[in-house]
Amino acid sequence: MEVTRKNFKDCLNSVYTAIEEADFLAIDGEFSGISDGPNVSALTNGLDTPEERYTKLKKHSMDFLLFQFGLCTFKYDQSESRYITKTFNFYIFPKPFNRTSPDLKFICQSSSIDFLASQGFDFNKVFCDGIPYLNQDEEAQLREQSEDRRNQHANGVGTPSFISPSSKGPAHVPEEHKDYINKVIEKVEALFTNAGKTLDLDPCTGFQRKLIYQTLNWKFPKGLHVETVETEKKERFIQISKVDDEERKRREQQKLEREQEELNDAVGFSRVIHAISKSAKLVVGHNMLLDVMHTIHQFYCPLPEDLQDFKEVTMCVFPRLLDTKLMASTQPFKELITNTSLAELEKQVKETPFKSPRVEAAEGFPSYNTAKEQLHEAGYDAYITGLCFISMANYLGTFLTPPKPYISARSKLIEPFFNKLFLMRIIDIPYLNITGPDLQPKRDHVLYVTFPKEWKTSDLYQLFSAFGNIQVSWMDDTSAFVSLSQTDQVQIAMNTSRYAESYRIQTYAEYIQGKQQDKEKLGQP
Amino acid sequence: MEVTRKNFKDCLNSVYTAIEEADFLAIDGEFSGISDGPNVSALTNGLDTPEERYTKLKKHSMDFLLFQFGLCTFKYDQSESRYITKTFNFYIFPKPFNRTSPDLKFICQSSSIDFLASQGFDFNKVFCDGIPYLNQDEEAQLREQSEDRRNQHANGVGTPSFISPSSKGPAHVPEEHKDYINKVIEKVEALFTNAGKTLDLDPCTGFQRKLIYQTLNWKFPKGLHVETVETEKKERFIQISKVDDEERKRREQQKLEREQEELNDAVGFSRVIHAISKSAKLVVGHNMLLDVMHTIHQFYCPLPEDLQDFKEVTMCVFPRLLDTKLMASTQPFKELITNTSLAELEKQVKETPFKSPRVEAAEGFPSYNTAKEQLHEAGYDAYITGLCFISMANYLGTFLTPPKPYISARSKLIEPFFNKLFLMRIIDIPYLNITGPDLQPKRDHVLYVTFPKEWKTSDLYQLFSAFGNIQVSWMDDTSAFVSLSQTDQVQIAMNTSRYAESYRIQTYAEYIQGKQQDKEKLGQP
Ligand SMILES: Nc1nc2c(ncn2[C@@H]2O[C@H](COP(=O)(O)OP(=O)(O)O)[C@@H](O)[C@H]2O)c(=O)[nH]1
Ligand SMILES: Nc1nc2c(ncn2[C@@H]2O[C@H](COP(=O)(O)OP(=O)(O)O)[C@@H](O)[C@H]2O)c(=O)[nH]1
Repeated sequence: MEVTRKNFKDCLNSVYTAIEEADFLAIDGEFSGISDGPNVSALTNGLDTPEERYTKLKKHSMDFLLFQFGLCTFKYDQSESRYITKTFNFYIFPKPFNRTSPDLKFICQSSSIDFLASQGFDFNKVFCDGIPYLNQDEEAQLREQSEDRRNQHANGVGTPSFISPSSKGPAHVPEEHKDYINKVIEKVEALFTNAGKTLDLDPCTGFQRKLIYQTLNWKFPKGLHVETVETEKKERFIQISKVDDEERKRREQQKLEREQEELNDAVGFSRVIHAISKSAKLVVGHNMLLDVMHTIHQFYCPLPEDLQDFKEVTMCVFPRLLDTKLMASTQPFKELITNTSLAELEKQVKETPFKSPRVEAAEGFPSYNTAKEQLHEAGYDAYITGLCFISMANYLGTFLTPPKPYISARSKLIEPFFNKLFLMRIIDIPYLNITGPDLQPKRDHVLYVTFPKEWKTSDLYQLFSAFGNIQVSWMDDTSAFVSLSQTDQVQIAMNTSRYAESYRIQTYAEYIQGKQQDKEKLGQP
Repeated sequence: MEVTRKNFKDCLNSVYTAIEEADFLAIDGEFSGISDGPNVSALTNGLDTPEERYTKLKKHSMDFLLFQFGLCTFKYDQSESRYITKTFNFYIFPKPFNRTSPDLKFICQSSSIDFLASQGFDFNKVFCDGIPYLNQDEEAQLREQSEDRRNQHANGVGTPSFISPSSKGPAHVPEEHKDYINKVIEKVEALFTNAGKTLDLDPCTGFQRKLIYQTLNWKFPKGLHVETVETEKKERFIQISKVDDEERKRREQQKLEREQEELNDAVGFSRVIHAISKSAKLVVGHNMLLDVMHTIHQFYCPLPEDLQDFKEVTMCVFPRLLDTKLMASTQPFKELITNTSLAELEKQVKETPFKSPRVEAAEGFPSYNTAKEQLHEAGYDAYITGLCFISMANYLGTFLTPPKPYISARSKLIEPFFNKLFLMRIIDIPYLNITGPDLQPKRDHVLYVTFPKEWKTSDLYQLFSAFGNIQVSWMDDTSAFVSLSQTDQVQIAMNTSRYAESYRIQTYAEYIQGKQQDKEKLGQP
């Protein structure tokens, strides 16, 4: 189901229901770009530490916009041994809430935009009809402001937040506005004596409106309701109504309710994420680290500096995560699945030894035909991710005695895969461990090599040709990590390089030490 | 006429013709955002110097994308006393030329996007069908690369730019690829002995393709044409053909021609700007400083640091500019035109003393109906801008004896308006003078005031209430320029403020001096 600003409010209850009744959820996001840096490969070195990778992704990816969010809920139907799915495809855009709300800027990367365009992505739906959102701070701030105003009204002190230090007496009206303001006062005095109930002033500037508010608050503390109204042409004018006390209260109550509703509208899509979070259900994604980072960044809070803090926030927002790319790259799936990209994974789990689960779309929800490709629509990708998870989980059931054809999302069998997010292209650390310390592989067999920028991979192969197989992880134009196949070759390589002029070799330990020293130097004044 | 990547090549000649035959051109751009800074008003202080304003706009506006360019050409038809117009609305997007071309990032500002969305702007047309472009450096670089390759081919030395230092002998083939490469060699040897003419290898990695190129270049320097071909699924494989020398040359010629064509495609929309530039025709725009800056930045070169250099580049690219907003704000129009926004100006020049010119769209071009608003489509805005220019120019003719109803774009009467670009919201410098030094208004009556961030405009009015009318130009939360109505009040204000604690007053001269000193300090190590 496609969800935009136009039908969001109508859909929200059905989203809540779908989350509540689900056994597990699958999610996927589409972004306006992936990497802000010089190139993606520089950002994903094969020997990054988890801290380095997190820092790079945070620095170079968070200014893009998550503008489509796919949610697919899976509910097991025991009697029919099938899953019932509800797929939602949310279009998301930070439409400014009002003229004083922050005017968000986001980066687009032309390759990503071009890629989505070639997949038929509908940018108009995002930019014209995207659902707005607020993070927790922005929401809290708005609620507080509204609360303050409510209290002030209740105490009958007007709206002091608008009153500047110098205007705690009658408003100071600059010379050139005096005529104008005096005419307004005359009109209001006339309003009190004649039969009419309301008075519409002509459109005027914000400053004039401010003067009017201040003057009327001061001169007529009772009996008036003053409000700014917007015409269809977006011109703003002031409407003044004669009211008795009861009527005044009723109007203010109405105004507050309208405000509350506007506030909820502004929180917008974040309410869906809050619901997912509160449900504490298993959330499945494919290669989901960036999805998780963007989701938290956009709908909860700016990402923390520190990886450990990020892990803690993540556990608050998504207490149970499962990454199907990590699952597919782990025993016993590793041997069976040669290519773990989502499209390939989906094909492979349709073949033996896997079994396609029985899945049906709930009534009123679109049923996808997995034969005809629709990849890279977030809702569809979330759906496919869920299917892959089910097939792999059920495969684990075949090892039980007796074998079980259905493994639930609560089964102990899948716990080993919980909260481990796939780390792209890191040679020796397959995942980020959200609920504990990360793996610390030995890197004794790794060399850090610097060389002239003319060098290619083949030059490195040539240089190390005496050492058998090597693995090259480029850092930038003039440096790379080279992993030797045996640790005892390291010393030989270091020795032979001693007198080299065009290149330089350090051990991994020396490299890390140098980096640490650089960092300490920077830390000092 | 709407021009996208799909019809760009077909339209290009008609664009060239339209420019060549025109008496003058009108342009307009739409951007993905206006200002990257905290807020627009901070960026446009009423007492900016032209240098300051240029630096701010350059720093805070150039990372947005000019993604729609409107061009309307106006040709005077003497016999019928009317203008014939051709309007083009170009959609522009930096689609990466190939996989090695720079992957451009640009910023979007949600308020701008939202505004365009509300006007029915078609983002899909931009992102899916936008015309690509290159600036002059990028173009030169590509042409050079292609030239190099041509020369190498002509000298029969193969393509050494691909050959790395270590492979000036036979290619070094890493152990794990030896089998694969040997099989390829066998296949090629078989190709020489059998009847077939071409051999398609299976898709393989870029690195394997490189090895194949190097190996075959070395082993079979003659008699083969080797080429990378892409399948519909974007898989790349190598095609090897047996060819005699003549055939080989013919194929290489074909390849070069294809490359030239691809290169022209990549230069794309920049060719339109080149044509406008070469024509040296009068280019009319409304409030066109940002349009000019973006056009140069995107299609010519990154903007220079220095305002003087910017003026010189501008004169090379657009030797004759006219800004209708500046024209409308200048004598004799100033008295007649109360609101110089494009929409209002357009309404006002339809009324006396102005006359609407006779204008008709050329055959095959859309004719706009100015009664029904279509503002904020770049082509339409360019069209309207041209109309305003004509009406204002013709009005100048009414002062001649005898009065002339038609004033051409070459008339001496409009020369005073040439190359002066409107400066938004600067109190005392109406325009940026592209062809000479800028106005240097006296600012003796201006004070620079700093104060606590709780202060509002009214506090400043209060503070200076003894001095009659003042004008406030906010700098940021805690500072503003205050212009007094009389210079001799400055000393009095300075004296009374001597013992003030909550605020501080400096003369404008002191302020400028302080800024200069800060700058010098920064320049020193
Ligand atoms: N003293 C006072 N000022 C107000 C009140 N409401 C609005 N203002 C001021 O009047 C100005 C115009 O308000 P409004 O008509 O809502 O337009 P906007 O602020 O331009 O969106 C605002 O900038 C406020 O500073 C009020 O209740 N009391
Ligand atoms: N020595 C040599 N290498 C080539 C030639 N053409 C391409 N290559 C190399 O082969 C690699 C694969 O080239 P190609 O098939 O065009 O794919 P791509 O570079 O991945 O776009 C490139 O990265 C080049 O380094 C050639 O004519 N000679």
